Amino acid sequence: MAKPLILVSNDDGITAPGIRILVEVAMKVGEVVVVAPDSPQSGMGHAITIGNTLRLDKSIALDDLDVEAYECSGTPADCVKLAKHHVLKDRRPDLVVSGINHGSNSSISVLYSGTMSAAIEAAIEGLPAIGFSLCDYGHGADFSHIPEFVEQIIRQAIAHQIPQNIALNVNFPKRSEEPIKGIKICRQAQAKWQEEFDERLDPHNRKYYWMTGSFMNYDKGEDTDEWALVNNYVSIVPCQYDMTAHHAIGRLNNDWEF
Amino acid sequence: MAKPLILVSNDDGITAPGIRILVEVAMKVGEVVVVAPDSPQSGMGHAITIGNTLRLDKSIALDDLDVEAYECSGTPADCVKLAKHHVLKDRRPDLVVSGINHGSNSSISVLYSGTMSAAIEAAIEGLPAIGFSLCDYGHGADFSHIPEFVEQIIRQAIAHQIPQNIALNVNFPKRSEEPIKGIKICRQAQAKWQEEFDERLDPHNRKYYWMTGSFMNYDKGEDTDEWALVNNYVSIVPCQYDMTAHHAIGRLNNDWEF
Repeated sequence: MAKPLILVSNDDGITAPGIRILVEVAMKVGEVVVVAPDSPQSGMGHAITIGNTLRLDKSIALDDLDVEAYECSGTPADCVKLAKHHVLKDRRPDLVVSGINHGSNSSISVLYSGTMSAAIEAAIEGLPAIGFSLCDYGHGADFSHIPEFVEQIIRQAIAHQIPQNIALNVNFPKRSEEPIKGIKICRQAQAKWQEEFDERLDPHNRKYYWMTGSFMNYDKGEDTDEWALVNNYVSIVPCQYDMTAHHAIGRLNNDWEF
Repeated sequence: MAKPLILVSNDDGITAPGIRILVEVAMKVGEVVVVAPDSPQSGMGHAITIGNTLRLDKSIALDDLDVEAYECSGTPADCVKLAKHHVLKDRRPDLVVSGINHGSNSSISVLYSGTMSAAIEAAIEGLPAIGFSLCDYGHGADFSHIPEFVEQIIRQAIAHQIPQNIALNVNFPKRSEEPIKGIKICRQAQAKWQEEFDERLDPHNRKYYWMTGSFMNYDKGEDTDEWALVNNYVSIVPCQYDMTAHHAIGRLNNDWEF
């Protein structure tokens, strides 16, 4: 039986430690092709490149792993589009994986996440997809506790399929003294970032701003990704790209007057 | 009674004709503050500015309309965050409107849309919000058939409220011989962009790519935004930012083995 074909992308860029770990795990399971941004794209959400040109070149960043790899000047969503329609063409991937992101993409962060936009773009293209993120922002983040879980989840996704039109948002707790307790299928917590803006003066006396903020979880449910992560479980949220609030259609039809 | 406070943003930038029309309509209904990108941000999806600084300056682009206006170097989502937490502070907007976008943001385009990311960011912030888009991509798009509908929708949103945690995605058909038939509350059609990449050589003989593509509607339903627009209705889709595919949680719990 042919090895499954796994496409790997991310948003931290092809030289990030996280993608290297994901490639190493994926190579245990299947044949791997990498198409990833040539520079960091964190917070790019589901951005695509419309008014500009794209570059796509063979990458040497992962040469020591002996894997087919390309770097792209575009966003994570661009990478998946280019991979499917230009790099792979008639080779249909059995799975698309994105990450491992340096930093959480749980709850509301899924909307801002380049990592998840690669996975969701793959789902739109009809491909099974998973975004992986570690709740540790540092470039030197410690990934040593998660490769076994990444491999298990990739194998399960290939064996049992991911439901149609869905991408999985997988987040791992930061490494701690305590081992990870297990894996939970969760819903996205009702949470948000409470922004603040740090106003400064540049050397020319013009104002500029840094966005800062703190994460606020308003959700008391024990079935959320935030609950799982705080309690040292791996969280898996199935995500869809139909953003319709179906429950609100009736109310709008009844209340509004046209 | 105090006039309602309406915050206006967009993704085509503060000098686009579409935002000017939206500001003119909003000023008929309430007091208006504009915080919009200083340059076009189409296709930015829900991108935010993390690793870079932001500029925010008083804008003269809409001076002839006598409105309080600011231009920001960031994305549409950045604009809404800066507006709420820095520009407006204790003044809570009664409505946030974004657009009017030059080009459709119906069905799957909601994910790529900067216009809708401003509206969805506002919903995350707990504010009622609407994104408006016209199915006409040109800078010289003809908006003359839609101001009455924009005003009607803004007035309805203020009178009847928008359900909590929801932003409305409003799309208008391109101007044609036939007058608009009315307004339909819709669901997001199951559709996608079928990309192609136009490969070219730059003056230095290096390859580059333009993303092109065609829009494919796979959805035969008559309750979708695509159906409404093709049949010359205004489409309104209520959009949520909970991306959880709740229906898939049970299946993953049952099928997968951990």
